[in-house]
This record gives sequence, structure tokens and C-alpha cells, in this order.
Amino acid sequence: MQKGVPAANNREIERKFLLKRLPEKLKGARCYIIEQGYLASESAGRQVRLRKKANTPSLTFKVGRGAHREEREIKLSPKQFAALWPATARRRLRKVRYEIPWKNLLIEIDVYRGRHAGLVVAEVEFPDRVTCRKFEPPSWFGREVTGEKRYSNVQLANE
Amino acid sequence: MQKGVPAANNREIERKFLLKRLPEKLKGARCYIIEQGYLASESAGRQVRLRKKANTPSLTFKVGRGAHREEREIKLSPKQFAALWPATARRRLRKVRYEIPWKNLLIEIDVYRGRHAGLVVAEVEFPDRVTCRKFEPPSWFGREVTGEKRYSNVQLANE
Repeated sequence: MQKGVPAANNREIERKFLLKRLPEKLKGARCYIIEQGYLASESAGRQVRLRKKANTPSLTFKVGRGAHREEREIKLSPKQFAALWPATARRRLRKVRYEIPWKNLLIEIDVYRGRHAGLVVAEVEFPDRVTCRKFEPPSWFGREVTGEKRYSNVQLANE
Repeated sequence: MQKGVPAANNREIERKFLLKRLPEKLKGARCYIIEQGYLASESAGRQVRLRKKANTPSLTFKVGRGAHREEREIKLSPKQFAALWPATARRRLRKVRYEIPWKNLLIEIDVYRGRHAGLVVAEVEFPDRVTCRKFEPPSWFGREVTGEKRYSNVQLANE
């Protein structure tokens, strides 16, 4: 299931990993520039995010921590986005996202830019809990950091 | 200046009062049903609100406390509103708003419904700080509660 398209029940099931190395397949992979900022965030992972992915603006609500989260996303018009974006000042981050198809799943590799340059993480979204649990990471994956606050985007954006 | 239409600099200047009694003019005043809920709220008054006012949906970002706050509002399509509204469950309130023109200003009287029934407050929005400071409340106004957390909508919605 592609990220950003919530399941019917608005749950996302996702794991996050550091990388030992970048995969061979990175050249030629689809990639996007993502710029995002946070309008508000609470503890317990409750947050409202603005994002521009390949120039397509959206607003996303998330709540929960760890592999299972509730997520609700709407597309915004450029005008709606422009009206809200200034409110995310000093709570933003930029990254390049590469999409790597992998065994019926999609691995998303995020290469952070700006003050987080050097950080690279991979996220995998799953259609259900069983697939999530049984996932065997490829050899180039490093330590799992699912749910670690230190690697959450909202935390990185607020640093 | 009408509420919901932010000033060019996205500041709202507003004072809030309890009421000694309802004004004579209430009959015949314009009134709307307002239903609102909060996607997320931080301390320091940073919040993202969803609202339906007379069936027109909007999303509003606010930050700051007291009489001077930053506010950014966008209209939502019914579809955008419907996708986000479930996320405000258990963080909602309903009220009837009456609009009373008063000496070049607009007094908004909010009569709360549901579990806050019995609470009535008046808000006045000002075009500038001088008008705000010099405002002389009508005789039917009671104690000023500007910036009192207890009477903030986000607080009432979360109770």
C-alpha cells in the first residue's frame, strides 16, 4: 500500500530502520523532494503536518506511536497550503525520498537535507499486522528504530 | 472586522467577557450554529481547530494567549472536512453564536450547548490595539475573562 493513502480504517502499519548502506537500486528509483512542517504536535504522537511532496500539498493528522498509528490525510490546494505554511516556521524539515519496490512492498528511503544532512532512514508500510511482523529486512538495513522518538520527523523538525 | 477573516498580518486582537444578562437586541440578531473540534493543541495556545459554522467548514491555526493572537484560517471542502472530523472525537463543543453590531464593532455572543449548557460568553474583535484598550463594555457585560484558560474553547472541548 502506498504511503499517504490511508487504509479504509485510517490505520497505518509501518516500521522504520537505519541503513547500513544505500542499496544498488537507488539509481533509477523514483524520487521526490519532500518539504514538511508541523502546525501542532502533542505528546503521544498526536500531530498535524503540512507537506509538499513533488509540489503536491497535503495536510495530515496522525496519532499514536510505534508501528500502528491512525492517519488521516487530505490534499490541499496551493492557496490553502500557502495560507497555513508560515505557521510551521522553525518546525520544518526537508528530505529526498526514494521509492524502492521490494517483494510486493515499497521501501521508502528518506535522505535528510539541511541541518539533518547525513541521516538516512528506510520506512516500510504494510497492508496488515501479519505482514508487518513477518517482514525480513534486506541485508542493507541496519538497526530498527520504529517508535523511537529521536528519529520521529516531528522531533527532528522541532530540533 | 468580522471574525474568521484574519487581518493582513494574521493577528487577531480580541477580548472575552462573561455576561450579566443577555442584551435586548438578541431577538432578531443574526445567529449561527457552530460545531468545532480540535485536531491537536499544545500549551501556549498553539492549536489546530476544525469548525462548521452555519454548515461552512474551515480549519484554523492559532497560537498565543490573551488579547493578541496569531490566526490563520482556510475554508475546507465538505470532503476535506469529512476526512478530518473523526479525529476530533472527544475534543468537540457546540454553541450558538449571535452577532450584535455595537458602535462600529461586532459583539459575538456564544451560548454553549451540550455539556457546557449554561455558559454564555461575549467576544469582541478589534481592528487595532488602541481600539482594544479603549473599549468600554456595555452595561450588560460582566467580568472580563480574556486569556483565562478556563474559558478557552480548546479547554472546554477537552473537558
